[in-house]
This record gives sequence, C-alpha cells and structure tokens, in this order.
Amino acid sequence: MGESLSTAAPIGIFDSGVGGLTVARAIIDLLPHEQILYVGDGANGPYGPKPADQVREFSIDIGDYLVDQGCKAIVIACNTATAASFQILQERYEERYDIPVFGVIQPAVRRAIATTRSGRVGVIATEGTVQSGAYDDAFRLLNDDIEVVSAACPRFVDFVERGITTGRQILGLAENYLAPLQQAGVDTLVLGCTHYPLLSGVIQMVIGPDVTLVSSSEETAKDVMRVLSEKNLLAPESKLPHEALTEDAVMREPVRRFETTGDPERFAELARRFLGSMVGNVTATTLTN
Amino acid sequence: MGESLSTAAPIGIFDSGVGGLTVARAIIDLLPHEQILYVGDGANGPYGPKPADQVREFSIDIGDYLVDQGCKAIVIACNTATAASFQILQERYEERYDIPVFGVIQPAVRRAIATTRSGRVGVIATEGTVQSGAYDDAFRLLNDDIEVVSAACPRFVDFVERGITTGRQILGLAENYLAPLQQAGVDTLVLGCTHYPLLSGVIQMVIGPDVTLVSSSEETAKDVMRVLSEKNLLAPESKLPHEALTEDAVMREPVRRFETTGDPERFAELARRFLGSMVGNVTATTLTN
Repeated sequence: MGESLSTAAPIGIFDSGVGGLTVARAIIDLLPHEQILYVGDGANGPYGPKPADQVREFSIDIGDYLVDQGCKAIVIACNTATAASFQILQERYEERYDIPVFGVIQPAVRRAIATTRSGRVGVIATEGTVQSGAYDDAFRLLNDDIEVVSAACPRFVDFVERGITTGRQILGLAENYLAPLQQAGVDTLVLGCTHYPLLSGVIQMVIGPDVTLVSSSEETAKDVMRVLSEKNLLAPESKLPHEALTEDAVMREPVRRFETTGDPERFAELARRFLGSMVGNVTATTLTN
Repeated sequence: MGESLSTAAPIGIFDSGVGGLTVARAIIDLLPHEQILYVGDGANGPYGPKPADQVREFSIDIGDYLVDQGCKAIVIACNTATAASFQILQERYEERYDIPVFGVIQPAVRRAIATTRSGRVGVIATEGTVQSGAYDDAFRLLNDDIEVVSAACPRFVDFVERGITTGRQILGLAENYLAPLQQAGVDTLVLGCTHYPLLSGVIQMVIGPDVTLVSSSEETAKDVMRVLSEKNLLAPESKLPHEALTEDAVMREPVRRFETTGDPERFAELARRFLGSMVGNVTATTLTN
C-alpha cells in the first residue's frame, strides 16, 4: 500500500454519489493532464442521513481501495464524509504513507475567512454536515472571531439531481432556507455541499448581489493543485521550451475512470446532468440568415 | 427581427473563439433546460489584437445573426467584444426589441466591488481589453473609490488552448504577469478573459491564498439567470408540484448548437479541452482490490 508515489498515478476522488463530480470537474479544469479515479458510493449513499461512524467505515473502505489502486492523492469530495472521516483518512494515508488527503471543508473555510468583511459567514449544507458542526470547528480553528450561521437545506440535493435549478418551487425553497442567513446579515456564503454549485444562480438571486458565494468544489481543486505542485506530484506535461510550443505539445487525454458501487446506468445518467457531454457536433456557419 | 420573444427560444452566446465556452458552461450549469446557440468567430478571432471598430463590426454581424435565429437573449462571452460593443448591442437589441444583452465585464466588476476589503482590485486580461480601459470605466461608474490595477497577460490564452495549465513555464509567466498586482496589494483579482478560469489554480497559487478571484464567466451566468427570471423569459420546467416529483420530472436534454465561422474540427478539438466529454463509460465496482 502506497509504497511508491508516481507522478503519473491517478488522483483518487470519492463521494457518496455524483455530487463530488463538481469537485472532479474543477480538478480536471485545473489539471487536465491528471489521471482520475472517481468512486461514487451509490450502494451506501447518500451519506447525509447516516451516522458518522458508519460514514467513517464507508470512507475507509473506499480510501483503502483508492490507495491500493495506486492513487497519489485522495480527495474526499463530499462534505458529510469530510466531516466524518477527514482526520482518520489523514492519519491513515498522509501520516503513514505521505499520500496527501484533501477534504472539501477546510479550503472553503479558508476562502470564506479571506473574503468576509463583516465577519459573519453563512454555511448551507445537508442536515448531516450541519449537525456534525464540522464547519463551525474548522472556522474556530482558523479564526475564532468569525460568526458562523448555518442552515440545513435538505431538499436541494433532490432538486439538483432532477435537473430543477430554476422555477417557483426551488425559488420558494431557497427563500425559506436562506431567510435566517439574510436576517443574520452574512456577507459570505459557503456552499457546503458539492451539489450546490449547480444552484448558485438561484442562491445568488435570493441572497442578493452583495453576498459572495464560496464553492467548496473550486476551492478544493485549487488546493489539490497547490499541494501536488509543492510536493512535485503533478503529472508530467510538455517538456518543450515555450518558444518551441507546437501542436505536438497539445495535451493527450489522460485516463479518467468513473466507478460506482451502485447502479452504473443510474450513475451515468445523473453524471450527465452534472457534467454533460456538452459539445457534440460543431457546425460551420457563415452567419447567413 | 425580435418580433416575439419565446421562453423556449435559445440563449445566443458568442465569442471570438472557444474562450466563451466557459461562459456557456456556467450558463448550462445554472440553466440546464435552456436551448443554447453558441457562435465562435474563428474566422476573425482572436479579437484581442484587432482595432475596436472592427471588433464592433464583427459583433454586430454575429448579434444580428443570433437575433435572426430567434434568440431571446444575447451574451457577449468575450471581454474584448464586450469592451468594444456592449453599448451598441444594447442599443441595437435591448432598447429596440427588448432582447436583453449581457457583457462579461459588468457582472465581474459588481462582484469585485462587493468582495474587496482594501478597495484595491486587480484585473488581468488580454492586451486589447486592458488598453480599452473598459474595466476602469466600469469600476468608475459603480464605485469611484476603487483603485484598479490592470495587467495584460497576452500569453495565457495560448497556454490554455494548448492544455498547459501547470508546470514551470506557466508558473514563471504567471509570476511575471502578477508581480505588479502583488506589489499593489490587491485583495481581489478579476479574471478578465474567459480563458482564465482554467488557470485559476496557477493564478491562485502565485497571487497567494488571501486574494479572492472573480470569474467573469460565472458572474455573467448568474446575471443571465437573474435577468431572464425577472423578465419571465426562462425556459419552462417541470410543472409538477414538488410532492409529485417523479422520474417524469427528470429534465430532457435541450438543443445546444455550437457553430463556428472558422474550422469546425479545430473548434471541436479546442472545445473538448474546455468542456470535455468527461463521463464516458461508468463501471461498477465492489471495491475489491
């Protein structure tokens, strides 16, 4: 397990289902040369309503699998799993084998602390994440002066997975969920669930233009890049000097594996809603009308 | 032209090439039910080095085409084109036909003003955008007290299009480009080119963790959603009451057309680097090692 970390090894990413794909996509955006091994735990997800002990067991099972598959880094792309098992996975892989472990909570908390002016930060997440107090703890650890106001938004995930991101229903739901945060006067809002970036339009609309949204998915991706770069663990890129940039330097598509412990068809269908296969055929146009 | 705006009509998006796809993707994320008609002006792009007059002509040609194709909104998904032609396209379509026109500059400027604590904001963009002074003007219009420090990053686009987003070369380039902004002590940095979100990892690494990045692509997408919602121009979604959410309510894939005035194969190849066809086959796993 973990005897030799190769720069060409995949980045291991896991989630209870498809939500972590927003993290995977952000990582692929920033690191298009990296191999990816994504595991969605469809058989056991969603983790939100499960006890923390059980989520920890699931996380260890998947973490061990990713390490056995040779992954050079482990990304817990799920807030509930990060809350339950970030520390134990760090001890298990990072301290023992020097395999860096990333959660989605700490990067978002650091960004929110850098962004807030008023010192009042909102966090929206699933019931499980809110109840775990993981965001409160993470803020307290870094800056004791921040006032954290959390709100559980249990029904958001359902709407995202059904592709309903606009309209009267989701707007009404968002108004209800976000009202206490507005009353508290937060100026920064952490999207503490990997599904929520797909709702950032409706969330921004309801919370108002003066509140800055922080996506844990994007912040985590930037963290992964920074740490892998510092540890010299990034996949090799073109070695050409920049003067010689040619078509040869164009990237080759690395292997990205998506696995699920649940139903592959169901995963693929949901995944399309997250990531799509956006550009199919491109047609030439001469702008004639 | 524009005689009847239908909610089912496509959102028209254009750019000098593929960079605007980051805007298109952000719009699709937030509005998965919308039809999209994207035009990349490969025959005339990149716009960066061209005179503003000429960019304005290109913009009008494409804008007219999009309106003739029945688009219910026009998104100028290019900073150079926004700088050169936002006002004229607003007059031409919004004032005359009530077709909303969006640029990528104003939404990012509003977000940066809401985010900065020090009042010192950095803007990185192409040479053309920086020279146009469009960001300076947009900041001045909304808040005269903001100190704007701009830096042209002419070679970033090339690197993004070649898929080179990490490594010594791009790191060195970013260090050079961003040094004046660091010296000026900006606490917020606008990514004033639609290619740059794909470099947010290296940019964040170089500029440091305390600076908040603002993506014009994401902010524009949120603006499009808000305005179309306010104008009741969003595509119809499921009409079911939320208690009856069933598999029937699952979204159907709307038509998304991608057209280029240049070489379709070249466009498709570059587009894949921006958007990918990320999730292909999904395999079932039982986590056995």
